[in-house]
Amino acid sequence: MGLFSKDIQSMDDLFVHTLRDIYYAEQQIEKALPKMVDKAKDDKLRSGFEEHLAQTRGHIDRIEQVFRQHGVEAKAVRCQAIDGILAEADEISGEAAEDVRDAALVAAAQAVEHYEITRYGTLVAWARELGRADCAALLQQNLDEEKATDAKLTELAEARVNRMAA
Amino acid sequence: MGLFSKDIQSMDDLFVHTLRDIYYAEQQIEKALPKMVDKAKDDKLRSGFEEHLAQTRGHIDRIEQVFRQHGVEAKAVRCQAIDGILAEADEISGEAAEDVRDAALVAAAQAVEHYEITRYGTLVAWARELGRADCAALLQQNLDEEKATDAKLTELAEARVNRMAA
Repeated sequence: MGLFSKDIQSMDDLFVHTLRDIYYAEQQIEKALPKMVDKAKDDKLRSGFEEHLAQTRGHIDRIEQVFRQHGVEAKAVRCQAIDGILAEADEISGEAAEDVRDAALVAAAQAVEHYEITRYGTLVAWARELGRADCAALLQQNLDEEKATDAKLTELAEARVNRMAA
Repeated sequence: MGLFSKDIQSMDDLFVHTLRDIYYAEQQIEKALPKMVDKAKDDKLRSGFEEHLAQTRGHIDRIEQVFRQHGVEAKAVRCQAIDGILAEADEISGEAAEDVRDAALVAAAQAVEHYEITRYGTLVAWARELGRADCAALLQQNLDEEKATDAKLTELAEARVNRMAA
């Protein structure tokens, strides 16, 4: 997030700051997903990651729309949380032998999804507080898609990946 | 997480590795919570953080029980994800002016909760896959408490904190 002390004075500042945080996060996820596609062995998992990459690009577009609606510059601020989550995902999937790599990848992807779910949940609530129903509606679409992706990952994990690896 | 390439060969390795990751995460959260108590202005939020600190200590005890049940050393491995999430929490709550600090703190705490929810969700599933119903039951208790804390934070955010700050 930002660099200067007490530069967040209002709910509006907090909203814009967090929007810039998730904007950065989505951009990093867009970069990380092709590596996850390459590492995945299971066809369904691989196509799931590919689908999510397309979806992530859609999320970035929607965030840019929210910036425009709210009349502020579309700017990313570094988000240490997503950097840590993605570094860990990279590490664990690199360390895991082939037989258990898919299980590790699913867990890593779910950590990413949960980060996005919590940030979009917060942003939707704050947009409503600020009377920005238009922004809230777009952010809710991203939130719903992240939740659906997380649910699909749980299904995949339970039905196939873990069973194959055990 | 760990340091050596391909040191995770089996589902059991993956389970133990991730258990050590959440063990580290809970210890860091235990250290971070008193700072969040100090920063919180709202009484309910402050007492919520205090309650969660006591709960976090209980989670650490349960994880140590799981290590014993599973017959492995209770050891923490550095988790970059929680380090990033907590660094961001510290930064945003430091940057936010007093009027909006509670809203920032709630959002930060929810990011922490979501990280724990995803990790415990994964660990419960893997414990079951490994036939460790005893470990799964303890981890499920931690998961249920994290979900309850997240729900309480949402309530607090919606009912009070944001409204006061807006």
